[in-house]
Amino acid sequence: MTPERDRVVVVGGGFAGLKAVKALAGAEANVTIVDQHNFHTFQPLLYEVATAGMEPADVAYPIRTIFGRQKNVMFRHGLVVGIDTEKREVKLDGDSALPYDYLVVATGAAAGFLGVTGAAQNSRPLYTLADARRLRNDLLLCLEQVDSHPERFDGGAPVFVVVGGGPTGVETAGALMELIDVTVKRDGLKLDRERTRIILLDAADRLLTAFRPTGSKYAEQTLENRHVDIRLEERVAAITPNGVKLQSGEEIKAALVVWAGGVTVSGTLADSLPGPRTRGGRIQVEPDLSLPGHPEIFVVGDAAAVPVGGKSDEITPQLAPVAIQSGHHAGRQIVRRIAGEPPQPFRYVDKGIMATIGRRAAVAQLPVGPIIRGTLGWLAWLGLHLVYLIGFRNRIQVLINWAWRYLDWTSGPRLIMGDVERESDVEMDSEQQSAGVG
Amino acid sequence: MTPERDRVVVVGGGFAGLKAVKALAGAEANVTIVDQHNFHTFQPLLYEVATAGMEPADVAYPIRTIFGRQKNVMFRHGLVVGIDTEKREVKLDGDSALPYDYLVVATGAAAGFLGVTGAAQNSRPLYTLADARRLRNDLLLCLEQVDSHPERFDGGAPVFVVVGGGPTGVETAGALMELIDVTVKRDGLKLDRERTRIILLDAADRLLTAFRPTGSKYAEQTLENRHVDIRLEERVAAITPNGVKLQSGEEIKAALVVWAGGVTVSGTLADSLPGPRTRGGRIQVEPDLSLPGHPEIFVVGDAAAVPVGGKSDEITPQLAPVAIQSGHHAGRQIVRRIAGEPPQPFRYVDKGIMATIGRRAAVAQLPVGPIIRGTLGWLAWLGLHLVYLIGFRNRIQVLINWAWRYLDWTSGPRLIMGDVERESDVEMDSEQQSAGVG
Repeated sequence: MTPERDRVVVVGGGFAGLKAVKALAGAEANVTIVDQHNFHTFQPLLYEVATAGMEPADVAYPIRTIFGRQKNVMFRHGLVVGIDTEKREVKLDGDSALPYDYLVVATGAAAGFLGVTGAAQNSRPLYTLADARRLRNDLLLCLEQVDSHPERFDGGAPVFVVVGGGPTGVETAGALMELIDVTVKRDGLKLDRERTRIILLDAADRLLTAFRPTGSKYAEQTLENRHVDIRLEERVAAITPNGVKLQSGEEIKAALVVWAGGVTVSGTLADSLPGPRTRGGRIQVEPDLSLPGHPEIFVVGDAAAVPVGGKSDEITPQLAPVAIQSGHHAGRQIVRRIAGEPPQPFRYVDKGIMATIGRRAAVAQLPVGPIIRGTLGWLAWLGLHLVYLIGFRNRIQVLINWAWRYLDWTSGPRLIMGDVERESDVEMDSEQQSAGVG
Repeated sequence: MTPERDRVVVVGGGFAGLKAVKALAGAEANVTIVDQHNFHTFQPLLYEVATAGMEPADVAYPIRTIFGRQKNVMFRHGLVVGIDTEKREVKLDGDSALPYDYLVVATGAAAGFLGVTGAAQNSRPLYTLADARRLRNDLLLCLEQVDSHPERFDGGAPVFVVVGGGPTGVETAGALMELIDVTVKRDGLKLDRERTRIILLDAADRLLTAFRPTGSKYAEQTLENRHVDIRLEERVAAITPNGVKLQSGEEIKAALVVWAGGVTVSGTLADSLPGPRTRGGRIQVEPDLSLPGHPEIFVVGDAAAVPVGGKSDEITPQLAPVAIQSGHHAGRQIVRRIAGEPPQPFRYVDKGIMATIGRRAAVAQLPVGPIIRGTLGWLAWLGLHLVYLIGFRNRIQVLINWAWRYLDWTSGPRLIMGDVERESDVEMDSEQQSAGVG
């Protein structure tokens, strides 16, 4: 670290934050990346952790190890509690502060419960690694309960409800069905397979609305073939400890409700920044992704209302590719600014979207051409995730895991590690609150 | 499960419990194995988890999966709170009970603090998987603290103390040194390597007293070459939040104290059994390992004072091979009893002992022949652990990990996952109390 250089602070070690730092690695600046966790979480595979298909360590990677060989990059393990845009300081828990000349805010979003009564208390979101671990513990404990005390369940078998028919909901429902199958087939769990139900709810008239209708159709048929009950055009009125109340008045008794209903930026650290917001609390930014009135601050990823760019006034959805591209752009802009070059507008390049439904079934939609599905879609999905996953070790782990699954061998250690975690709801909640910084 | 068969309950899914169940698999009995965790812990590698060399899932394996294909074996996930030898019932938390015709008590031991003041509060034991995860979190958090706030440490660098020079202490000290090296070399952690110290304390005049002196000498020299400070013939008077007080009056300031000083059976579930005890609370058993006056109850593994057998009055040390052999023997005796055959006395077959000191360094002592050490000892140690580790997946994981290490590539995800766990001391303590049942 060279003292007289410009100081860049990047808040958040998600996709956007990492890409910003990578764009700054080797630049004439001292870069500090700060996160409340010492690891990056590969969020697209959290549903695998939640359904005991993968281990937390398979989808997490230490930020220090990523940048360990970059001499101008420092990692700081700490919880950011505020940003002082006047003093140009990032405030950390415990009275420390990181001064900056340039700041990249990549604090992400948090699970958004859309104002549904009881959702925060009685359903399990799936946005952070802690969420995924908690959901897994609850699922596995629930299955153990069914085995030892079936009389505690209506009809002697559990009902699981997944709220939200986007990629997270579809992936979770599919993987949950596989988890139940394997615990019965391989682990000798006593469970009335016929009576056990997984219900996937969505307010829209089809699943995966970001896809073209043929993609949605494929996902719906595949899930139905695998015995997931899909209920479309159903709005959730409330979630109680006993299940879900629909706006139609119907009540669904459920052993566990998974919330895959969306994310919000409101209530996260990003609130401490000035300026206008869009729906969901996303921070409006200039075409170069800087904060209006603060050319030294860039907001990227889920926290920002990232413009599509070009001639459009649209903003992009909160997706990993947007985070990656916007993070990279912000890093590049800081390099240019330091070199005295003018800013460039951001332009999102849509490379397509993907979702997996389960073993040998996925759907991929490229900007042009037909929808890719089935085993081919699944392999494409695997390949893409292996490329984006960080760390050689993690890639090997995940590849072994998937090879196993391709062959329909059972894999994934179904360990209930959370006895210890379940008592610490206070800390869990605070983690969720500031989930963005992780 | 066939109703009219004899009911066998095995309490504890450690080495002894698993071996007892394996000996009963396929027998004319309905076998239930009960544990508070749904997984078996491979305790010999806990020090690897504690020093971030392996993941919890690499050393844990679901008990259900182990016996999933054994039709006469059931797993019950539950905390055993007592044993009613009159009613012949194992009582579970939540008012359930498991009636038995035969019972195998394989509840293990718990960390034994030998009456050292403050040891339970201010040092970290290493006997359960929860212990290992907690120690890892503390170690990694401590290293992050040194990086961001070196001024909080005396001389700007941390001192780590390991109490106990048996295999666990030696293995932990060696692996801790490797963890520190890798965080500095690979992760860019700012740490004054020269001032950072690891001190290994023992009351005896040599390390690894179970080995012949040449084995101890090799361990001492290897650790000293790797910059571990060995202090022999030092007795610990107290452990405080600031470090260790020796009986000599000396105080050693320490950032973290690891307790590898031994185990005890007192204070565990085994207390609910009648009959005489030996030192450390171990339950005295008949030559066939049954409880005196209760031929239907067998006590095995760390919880039992297992006789060496043959003509000796000796009891065996609390080691994995003893647990494995005694568990197997108890299972076999129950099979014989059901078949109307007379009991057989247990006889321990000593196959040798091993300890690893770190990368490419271990010491193995067979009943006859010279001590094996160095790379050869290390490879022997690896091979043996791979054979005893349960689960194909875990073996592959551990093998990859070790191949990496042999080549001196960095491995092991150094993830601080414990933000969530640290707050739940109540539950952690209760876990430790009944550590035997896990």
